[in-house]
Amino acid sequence: MFLFQFSRRLPQGKRYCGFAVSTCVCPFEIMSADKVAKLADAANRLRVSAIEMTAAAKSGHPSSSVSAAEIVSTLFFDEMKYDVSKPKDINADRFVLSKGHACPILYAAWHEAGLITRDEYLKVRHIDSDLEGHPTPRLNFIDVATGSLGQGLSMATGLAYAGKYLDKATYRTYCLLGDGETAEGAIWEAAAFASHNKLDNLVAVVDINRLGQSQPTQLAHDLGAYARRFEAFGWHAIQVDGHNVEQLLKAWAEARQVKGQPVVVLAQTYKGRGIEGVEDLEGFHGKPVPVEKTEAIKAKLQSQTPLKWDIPKPAYDVPKIDLKIGENKITTPNYKLGEKVATRAAYGTALVKLADQNPRILGLDGDMRNSTFSEQLWKKSPTQYVECYIAEQQMVGAAIGLSCRDRSIPFVSTFAAFLTRAADQIRMGAVCFANVKFVGSHCGISIGEDGPSQMALEDLALFRAVPNSVVLYPSDAVSTEYATELAANHRGIVFIRTGRPALPVVYENNEKFAIGQSKVVKKSGSDKLVIVAGGVTLNEALKAAEQLEKEGVNAAVIDIFSVQPIDRQTLLETAQKSEGKVLTVEDHYQPGGIGEAVAAALSDVPNIVIRRLNVKEVPRSGAPDALLDRYGISAKHIVAEAKKF
Amino acid sequence: MFLFQFSRRLPQGKRYCGFAVSTCVCPFEIMSADKVAKLADAANRLRVSAIEMTAAAKSGHPSSSVSAAEIVSTLFFDEMKYDVSKPKDINADRFVLSKGHACPILYAAWHEAGLITRDEYLKVRHIDSDLEGHPTPRLNFIDVATGSLGQGLSMATGLAYAGKYLDKATYRTYCLLGDGETAEGAIWEAAAFASHNKLDNLVAVVDINRLGQSQPTQLAHDLGAYARRFEAFGWHAIQVDGHNVEQLLKAWAEARQVKGQPVVVLAQTYKGRGIEGVEDLEGFHGKPVPVEKTEAIKAKLQSQTPLKWDIPKPAYDVPKIDLKIGENKITTPNYKLGEKVATRAAYGTALVKLADQNPRILGLDGDMRNSTFSEQLWKKSPTQYVECYIAEQQMVGAAIGLSCRDRSIPFVSTFAAFLTRAADQIRMGAVCFANVKFVGSHCGISIGEDGPSQMALEDLALFRAVPNSVVLYPSDAVSTEYATELAANHRGIVFIRTGRPALPVVYENNEKFAIGQSKVVKKSGSDKLVIVAGGVTLNEALKAAEQLEKEGVNAAVIDIFSVQPIDRQTLLETAQKSEGKVLTVEDHYQPGGIGEAVAAALSDVPNIVIRRLNVKEVPRSGAPDALLDRYGISAKHIVAEAKKF
Repeated sequence: MFLFQFSRRLPQGKRYCGFAVSTCVCPFEIMSADKVAKLADAANRLRVSAIEMTAAAKSGHPSSSVSAAEIVSTLFFDEMKYDVSKPKDINADRFVLSKGHACPILYAAWHEAGLITRDEYLKVRHIDSDLEGHPTPRLNFIDVATGSLGQGLSMATGLAYAGKYLDKATYRTYCLLGDGETAEGAIWEAAAFASHNKLDNLVAVVDINRLGQSQPTQLAHDLGAYARRFEAFGWHAIQVDGHNVEQLLKAWAEARQVKGQPVVVLAQTYKGRGIEGVEDLEGFHGKPVPVEKTEAIKAKLQSQTPLKWDIPKPAYDVPKIDLKIGENKITTPNYKLGEKVATRAAYGTALVKLADQNPRILGLDGDMRNSTFSEQLWKKSPTQYVECYIAEQQMVGAAIGLSCRDRSIPFVSTFAAFLTRAADQIRMGAVCFANVKFVGSHCGISIGEDGPSQMALEDLALFRAVPNSVVLYPSDAVSTEYATELAANHRGIVFIRTGRPALPVVYENNEKFAIGQSKVVKKSGSDKLVIVAGGVTLNEALKAAEQLEKEGVNAAVIDIFSVQPIDRQTLLETAQKSEGKVLTVEDHYQPGGIGEAVAAALSDVPNIVIRRLNVKEVPRSGAPDALLDRYGISAKHIVAEAKKF
Repeated sequence: MFLFQFSRRLPQGKRYCGFAVSTCVCPFEIMSADKVAKLADAANRLRVSAIEMTAAAKSGHPSSSVSAAEIVSTLFFDEMKYDVSKPKDINADRFVLSKGHACPILYAAWHEAGLITRDEYLKVRHIDSDLEGHPTPRLNFIDVATGSLGQGLSMATGLAYAGKYLDKATYRTYCLLGDGETAEGAIWEAAAFASHNKLDNLVAVVDINRLGQSQPTQLAHDLGAYARRFEAFGWHAIQVDGHNVEQLLKAWAEARQVKGQPVVVLAQTYKGRGIEGVEDLEGFHGKPVPVEKTEAIKAKLQSQTPLKWDIPKPAYDVPKIDLKIGENKITTPNYKLGEKVATRAAYGTALVKLADQNPRILGLDGDMRNSTFSEQLWKKSPTQYVECYIAEQQMVGAAIGLSCRDRSIPFVSTFAAFLTRAADQIRMGAVCFANVKFVGSHCGISIGEDGPSQMALEDLALFRAVPNSVVLYPSDAVSTEYATELAANHRGIVFIRTGRPALPVVYENNEKFAIGQSKVVKKSGSDKLVIVAGGVTLNEALKAAEQLEKEGVNAAVIDIFSVQPIDRQTLLETAQKSEGKVLTVEDHYQPGGIGEAVAAALSDVPNIVIRRLNVKEVPRSGAPDALLDRYGISAKHIVAEAKKF
């Protein structure tokens, strides 16, 4: 039986876990030699499984997996509380594998726990297996997809935030990071968020195995340097030998005692640990061990037969909630036709109405709340608002985490241009099959004087390229309120594009809107063309149609509203009634925008001719109307193009 | 005359600049009371100009500008070396305004220096003025566009890297940051890069004015917390009162003495400093002072008439270089028709050939060099290679900085999927009119077993949405080599999409390629349709066309090669000769991809019918061929769709 000192106090007043095992009484538990041996043995079995499955797949990352074997064995078979049969139970401790390429060690852990058979894991990376090359929530034990490095910690902060502030429950969140990925800025955004929000239910562990893909990392095995960085960002840091089961168990115990701040365990490890001719050597990233060599490794490492682990159950203290809003549950909008209201303002109004309906509707913003109007929610119900400061990657990552296991419906808002900062997180949100709503304000050149850096002109392309996403582009206050409600009721990623300028209300307050439905806002029996527009350009299109009518040319006008899915039927029918001529006008660049979406939707119909007006170059500062004119998307240009048509 | 102690040594061995002025002899220079008073007075004049110009524009950010008045006055009129008539001279010290919204104070400084008249600055934010709401290189004193926060420091590291390692010259780079933007992870990626590369010619200064846009920042005026973060990231940190001219001058002098590491000056300031009823108060972000109030402020602040400053000239020690490569200067490719080579491998070969031609061709990579094949350059000429580790935002920001004032042509490579991590930096690269080449490898589902997190399926949309960008998608080794050469010779942003699998060589080694030109690789006199493809799908299309031919259906095949600008003429002519039927096939999602680009290019031509095959959902892991088949872009699916057509 080992009895040991819990920690030693360093001169600076910081606590570090001692590397040497000494003989004082542990304040937390008695650690038996038997337990330590069993967990060390389990770690070796995890190694063997990870090596075996990647050898069978002839691809994958065994060396990055085995460095974390003891970290994973101590977490899964001593520290974490869960029910093996229900890995996603709302009460269970959470585990996020930020270094997603190390998933063989995670699959191995769930095999050791009894969830996955050996036959199953030997099909890893096959097209008919959910055990993919990097983990996705297709698996019943995965909350968030990882594999784009540096994102897991943000997602884990979302899980932890939900646990501490929404569920107010005891479940804890563990996040395993690679050392190389701490070069990603997103890690430090997450670090700041976690300490600012005092997430003491969050434990990160960095598998510091010294080697990246193509060379040693910048900090190699300098654990002190890692500790200084995390401590400077407000974390409690513990340094351990990551292959020493006792030190890991002590670290998890110490972490449980830390209040008011998140904890990081900095684990010195060796890449390829336990694989002869691979351990601590460069050149073995993402290289499986040849099948013929696995038996020898197995013989060397696997000293015992698997155990039936007695995994502690969670506390079952999470409240059951319902995220349903229901259709037409928010109060009817209250605007007058023609009244000028910015769509961003109407979004704020609708968000508050939704939040009144369900306490798990959240608003997240990146220090832009007084511009995006999420401020209305912050004022009305501050506990439903999460300030993310100027850290959009973190905001999106946290939102994905907050949405997991139906703990909340996060509405993420900032300038649409700045959502590009989180493009990779949004991309991974798709792989997470996340239920997150994005609201990008200040789209296009119509923002005016702030200039091109603040103008979103590629946001429709960004969000349309998220598979199965819904992209709504409301043109007035009424449609914005309904768009917000539609977003809350739709499961999946939804983007709402809002604008800065106040625009006339076009619709009656009780107009009905639907995802996948455009609106024909003007038509006659003798239209010579149809103009398809959205947002500020709908206003311009209506002015142009009026002018054209005066000049004897009737034009139909469609408010696109649902950019994706696109309303092919309405577009087609209206085009066919308008001599097959379609003119799209958008405050966006061409690629991936409304014009291309419409062209693609109608591309297999002969005799329909489509032209486009859109921004074609990097714009500049100026008054909104002057810019619409200069960049060719004002009423004047629509009239001219329609006449040429 | 003030004489003062340079710095005091703190117990930890860190150096901090003393806040109090004491009376020891300054080791660097004698600071006169006159100089201090003049710089303080200049700062107030800058304030007045910034307030005046934003009042005239009725928009802008005076409060964020005036907090930096002393920082800017001491830098521009005492510390920095430049020739006012040639702000972008290759020898001059560089200044990057990372907090771009504070540009009124920068415009004010160039007015004070004599470059801009008052009449000019009173037209700030007007459509006919290059003095935009956020600075862009349309101005002759701006290297990089800023305004999306947290990017300026990355760009500044690029400038500093060029100065230290390429030019080996004495010019220094100064970067003014806002405190709020230090929440952006990109700042910490830049911080790590700067210290890892020992950029002791780089000085960052943080204008810690305590207030963000909608609330106080997370760290408020806790300068110590900022210092701990920067020190943990390897910087020398100096804390000063940012409104105290003497302390600022001391800090710049101290910074000049620091060797082997970058320096950050942490300046405690007050937002709105000098504006009564605004200073240090919330609610005044981006709010101009009413014009009628400016005279009173002017009267209070402006005590002296402007001076003719004697600004020290730079050292003129930068070598003159020529970035020109010239066409057909690299050695002819050396492949055999049908030989299987991955396009990513051919990129590595071409990059080395280019680098041989010109020492200012650089390769940057994010720890993926052994996958992207930029490793070939690292092996051949390590001084032309810049390792950026797993920090894509930093890599792109640094590349933009490295390309400024024609100091180099950076080729940035990583997995195409991970370039989305830097989507906002790429967007700002467009506003910078940057000359940077991006090479994204491992595109599409054809990477196979690694799964969706590693598959770029929106990269064409991302890069097409960069105005005036060139997007090349070579399908074999020969065209890849020429694409790389074309990229080097084209001024502006170029994206080259490369793939993982080895594909048969399609072209003779002396085939000619051009930007804006597609290749008809198969045609007959009796084609029933044309298949448009690229990369792995060109290979599938050729197989399909062969199969179709056997079944009596002739199909033309186009290798798209230049996705942007698109070769409308070749597409149109071939389509018209192929019964007006076009089938696009791509390893990419629909939005913004090849299918939409082609549909848009031909949308105004009646009687052309276009159908698409592309990836439609989040894919999964699997063998490449199995995935091409499952997601509907293999030869089999092309044959079936062609028959249906």
